[in-house]
Formats: sequence, structure tokens, C-alpha cells
Amino acid sequence: MTSPRRAPGGFPVVGIIGGGQLARMCAGPAVELGVTLSVLAADAHDSAALVVPSAPVGEHTDLEAVRAFARACDVVTFDHEQVPAEVLAALEADGATLHPRPSALRYAQDKLAMRERLTGAGIPCPAWAEVRDEGDLLAFADQHGWPVVLKTPRGGYDGKGVLVATQPEDAAEWLARAAAAGEPLLVEERVPFVRELAVLVARAPSGQASVWPVVETVQSGGICTEVLAPAPGLTPELAERASDVALGIAAELDVTGVFAVELFELPEGHVVVNELAMRPHNSGHWSMDGATTGQFEQHLRAVLDLPLGSPRARARWTVMANVLGGVDADLYPTYRHVMARDPELKVHLYGKAVRPGRKIGHVNLSGEDLADLRERARHAADYIEGAIRE
Amino acid sequence: MTSPRRAPGGFPVVGIIGGGQLARMCAGPAVELGVTLSVLAADAHDSAALVVPSAPVGEHTDLEAVRAFARACDVVTFDHEQVPAEVLAALEADGATLHPRPSALRYAQDKLAMRERLTGAGIPCPAWAEVRDEGDLLAFADQHGWPVVLKTPRGGYDGKGVLVATQPEDAAEWLARAAAAGEPLLVEERVPFVRELAVLVARAPSGQASVWPVVETVQSGGICTEVLAPAPGLTPELAERASDVALGIAAELDVTGVFAVELFELPEGHVVVNELAMRPHNSGHWSMDGATTGQFEQHLRAVLDLPLGSPRARARWTVMANVLGGVDADLYPTYRHVMARDPELKVHLYGKAVRPGRKIGHVNLSGEDLADLRERARHAADYIEGAIRE
Repeated sequence: MTSPRRAPGGFPVVGIIGGGQLARMCAGPAVELGVTLSVLAADAHDSAALVVPSAPVGEHTDLEAVRAFARACDVVTFDHEQVPAEVLAALEADGATLHPRPSALRYAQDKLAMRERLTGAGIPCPAWAEVRDEGDLLAFADQHGWPVVLKTPRGGYDGKGVLVATQPEDAAEWLARAAAAGEPLLVEERVPFVRELAVLVARAPSGQASVWPVVETVQSGGICTEVLAPAPGLTPELAERASDVALGIAAELDVTGVFAVELFELPEGHVVVNELAMRPHNSGHWSMDGATTGQFEQHLRAVLDLPLGSPRARARWTVMANVLGGVDADLYPTYRHVMARDPELKVHLYGKAVRPGRKIGHVNLSGEDLADLRERARHAADYIEGAIRE
Repeated sequence: MTSPRRAPGGFPVVGIIGGGQLARMCAGPAVELGVTLSVLAADAHDSAALVVPSAPVGEHTDLEAVRAFARACDVVTFDHEQVPAEVLAALEADGATLHPRPSALRYAQDKLAMRERLTGAGIPCPAWAEVRDEGDLLAFADQHGWPVVLKTPRGGYDGKGVLVATQPEDAAEWLARAAAAGEPLLVEERVPFVRELAVLVARAPSGQASVWPVVETVQSGGICTEVLAPAPGLTPELAERASDVALGIAAELDVTGVFAVELFELPEGHVVVNELAMRPHNSGHWSMDGATTGQFEQHLRAVLDLPLGSPRARARWTVMANVLGGVDADLYPTYRHVMARDPELKVHLYGKAVRPGRKIGHVNLSGEDLADLRERARHAADYIEGAIRE
């Protein structure tokens, strides 16, 4: 494997395992900081591999490929949370510097471990239990009522790995599959939430932590479609409580790097933790244009143990709308329309082939009038997707 | 030459001749837009070649290297203005799309041609003449007084190629060298300017043009050290006049891409044109963090004939301070100090080896208090350079 080319002046190499859009969006900030990126990509046409000169091809599950990759890097971080524990352990044994560390990462990889640890630390969570059979499930539902939410502890994202069961029969297939695999499921009460919030934190190995304004995430079919920064109408008390929950988890788990906590806002002005993501996160894409320090620059600073940048919002509101794959594969011709219609629009596309429902990009808009920004961002995203043609 | 890898979806390849920091700083915006960059770099360790996957090595004077490079690109633009006219003509004959076009670029390559064309179009310039011998020089000085400013028509930058002559003897060596080369010199009156301004314009092949707020540039020894955006205390009338001059030149010369006009502000509230640069420019680096659309994104949009983005300032003031090479080659260790001292600081380093006086990076700061921003930006730049250690 050829070594990544470093800039002169003592600049480090940051390795990212995984070549998706989160690795890709580190590229611009790395260029400006003079830091060299290297990406271990599953495919030479992966989103990040298209834009980073050092992008060896290898699977994140291939121990020898990952070890060779890590040896050429000063610090190793992640585009996703799927690197197996035994691979992470081997890297640690090799002396690689990993951020987040495996001891933290396991709580983003295993939702049962996460629930157990957070509950133990007194962090507000929905009621939950480990279930292995219908008996466990019925016992939980007797106590917390139907419907319940079943989750596979590992590997779920964007609504995958989540099942809302309104009666025992809905869960039968999942329980049978889990039993066959010898794996438990996580069951949670269905929280009567008002809306979904997310808190993005960056934390450096030094312990310095920084939190961006709390945002509202708008979901459709389990996929985030829109982020409003800051969350409209959030009381300062609840904003502080939500931030404290996220900062508390980051400290409790000794998280390093950018870290997202997805929360449910409850009617009585409380929050409970829905999910964790131990990496830059879709709920933070607004910060690329809407904050003094965007999440990808901050992630690089955090994993390098550099002092963190200001997370201050640069406008009253920033709205992010995801661009999902539609039926039209030709994205570039849409630029003429959306850019002419809205000179303020910030477009971010990921170099990914279009597949229906796949996250292929996002747009950001900052300004004073939230309703107007939402309409404009939605229009641009819909137009790029091909959902509208005027 | 391997072809640059395109993103799926109809995205184009923008080729940049020259691998300096201006090419490099297009990389981040290209990633976000999904546009593929390709850079023809003189050396594999050039600033831009470190960060762009497609960076074939070749000289901008090597006709066949440039032609092969251009064939793999949808549009070709430039990191500098040094590509010879015959090379540009061959690319045009090959059917390459060049922005700026050679017919415009010649006015940035040849200061005598520039003065002649602008004067003919009624655009305010210092008094000037072509000189070939001492007789020409004395005739000019008789009319406009001493000192005079001598310039080599081609190849000067950062104060190189400029001589202030206070008496005929000062010019003797330059005149002898020019006569030996069979080349004329440009002589200009020394303008009693109040300060230097710069106007940055983007213009697309469609004719759409956009202008950023007029800035003040602070020079030291012929090198720009600081940019204040917008120029403090500039009257709206003079701002409009300066913008109109720049937009007028862009239209007159049919410039495409980002284009900078350096101006002298005169005591009576007038401006005269000092220099032109037909590319992104140091006076526009503030826009990377200080404007809705930075100059490098805008340059890509302009050369691709996409609708231009808003050039609106995002803060009351943005200050840019250049980082020049000092004696200390170790730049990265300075990050800990400057980032801890100022979480708002935006650092941009170019991956270039340190040489005394060489432009190796810049910092930007945005906010409300100009004096404070200047002090902080200067401190950070000085610290990174190694000029101060506290």
C-alpha cells in the first residue's frame, strides 16, 4: 500500500474506515487545515474515494486490510459504526490511535449495551427490555402497553432494524429469526413524543467538549428528511437539558470525535434518548454552512486532539433538506434551475449513484424566515430528486 | 493519461492548469458540488496535487501535455496567468472550452495591452506610457513628474516586476535589460493614493455577473498581508463606482470566471485601476468564510456557466490575514495555540513548504468589531509563521 502524501510542516494523516458521504465531507475541511486524509473504501467508486487521493480499497471486515491501512495513519476514525469488535481490538493491540475508541464505540454498535449503560448512569431512556421469546415480549407489553418498538441491537439505520408491533403476531417473524440466530432483540415502549430532536457534540481526547445548538429532525418513513437549526420554539430550559444529556453521555462513555444523540421530546418538557451515532451525523449537516465550525472540520479537530472550534450558529435559522434518490439519474442538469431560483442555496451532492430512497445529497439554506427557508429548501431538494419539474 | 473519475449523474470535469493554492482551494467546493477536478501540476507535490486525485504532472508550457490534459476535461481554467498564448491558441483550435478565454486572458498577461484597452474604453487608469529607452522615460517624467513606476508588462506578481524610480539612474538597469530582450517596459505615474481597494467579480459565459463587497487590501513590501471586507469607511457612492469599474471591465473584456481588479483610492473620492487578475485572487480569500458564496465555489459555477451564488457578506466584517513563510518549517504544532486562543478562527494552509515571504496560508475571522478582528487575525498569522511565540 502506498503511503498517503503528507503536506510538509508536520501535518498528520487522518484515516477514515469507510468511504461514504461522511468520509467525503471531511475532505474539504481537511484540505483547508492541511491535514491529509486517507480513506479505506470498499469500492474505488465510493463517495469519498472519488475525492481523496489516498483511498485504498478494502473491506472494513478484512483484518489485514484494515491493519495495513491503519499503519499508514496517525489517527483512525470511522465513516460508520460497522467495524467488528475483533478488528478494532487488533488495531488497538497494534498501537493504532482510534477515535472514537472501541470502548466507546460498542455503545453505538449495540443498542442493548447502550440502553443498559445509559440507564445505569441515570440518563433518561424509554422503558426497554431484552427479549428472546414471546413470553419476554408479553411481559414487557403487559407492563408498558401496546404498541411496542422492536429493534435489532446491531446494524440498523434509517428505519431499518426497527419494527412497531401492535400485537404479538406482528413480532413473531422477528422473534423466530432472532431465536434462530441466537441473538436477543431490544424492545422499547413507544414513546408519545411531540417531535424528534438531535444534539450534536464534539469531544476531544483532552476532554474538551463542544455542543451545537439543539436541532429538530423531521422524519418520514424512518428517514430524516429535514433538519431545523435551532429547533423552533424550544425553551432555553429544554435546550439546556437536551445539551446536558448529550454532553453527559459523551463524558460517561468517553466519546471522542463528533457524536450525535437523537432524542424524543415528550409533552411535559422532558427528553429521552432514542439513538446514538458515534460519528458525524445527518442531523449536523446544517452546520457545514450554518455554523462557524461545521461538523466535519470539528470531527477532524476532535480526533486530532486539537482545540475545538466555535459551534455558534451563523444565522437565525438554517434548514437542511436531504436529497433522496428518485427515478431520475441525471442530477447535474437540475443545478441550472435550483441555482438560478435561489442564489443563497448551498448544494452538497455525494457522488453516489441514484437509488430510490438513498441519501445522495442535501441542501442548506440560512436566513431569518423559517417557513420561507423550509419551502425553498424542500423545493430545491425535490427538484434535484426529480420529484418536481417546475 | 488516465481519465479523471466522474461522479455518476452527468457531472462535469473541470481542469485547472497549475497546481498552486488557488487550484487547491477549489477542491472543497468541487467536492460539495459533486464536480470532478483535475489539475495539471508542475510537480506531484504541488499544493493542489496533494489533495486532488486526478493531478497529472506537466508544465503549463508543454503543448502536448496541456493538450492531453485538456482533452480529458469539459472545461479548462487556470491557477495562474502564465500559459503561453500559443498553447492557449492550440487548445482553442482543438475545441477546448477555456474560461477565461484567451481573448480576455491576454489583458491579464500583458500590462501594456491592458492599459491600452482600458484607456480606450474610458476606464480610469494612472497616466502610463510604453518606454523603450531613457528618452521615452524622461519624456514621461517631464509630463508626470518623479518618481515613476516601471513595470515589466509580463510575469510580475507580489511586487516582483515593479520598480519605483525616483531618478533616471534608478531605471538604467531595467531599461538595458528590456532593450537587450527587445521588450518594452510600462511606465506609470506614481498615484498619490489613500489606500488600495480590490473588487472581485464573477462572470459566467451567459453574461451573468456578480460582485462581492469592495475590500481594502493592506500591502507590505508589495505583498498583500491583510484584507478588510468590506473596505472600512467606504462611501456607498465610491463602493458603487468601484464595483461599476470592475463590472465594466469584466463586460468590456468578456471575462469569464472570477476576476479581480486592484484599485487605488484617490483623495478626491475617485479610483483608478492598478492591476487585473483573471482568476480567484488573494483579495477574495475572505469570502471562503465571510460570504454566502466563496470565490472558489463561484469560480467553478462561473466556468461551468451555472447560475452564480449570492456574494452577500455573512458578517459585518471579515478580516483575512496572510500567513507568510518564516523561518520555522513546523506549522502544524502552532495549531494548538491559535485554535485554543480563538475558537472563531478559520485556518487555511496550503500544503506548501515554508520559504521566507512565501504565501503559505491565510486565516479568516468574522465579527462585529473590526479592530479586535484585525488584532486577532494578525496574532494568529504571526504565530503560525513563527514570528511570535506567545
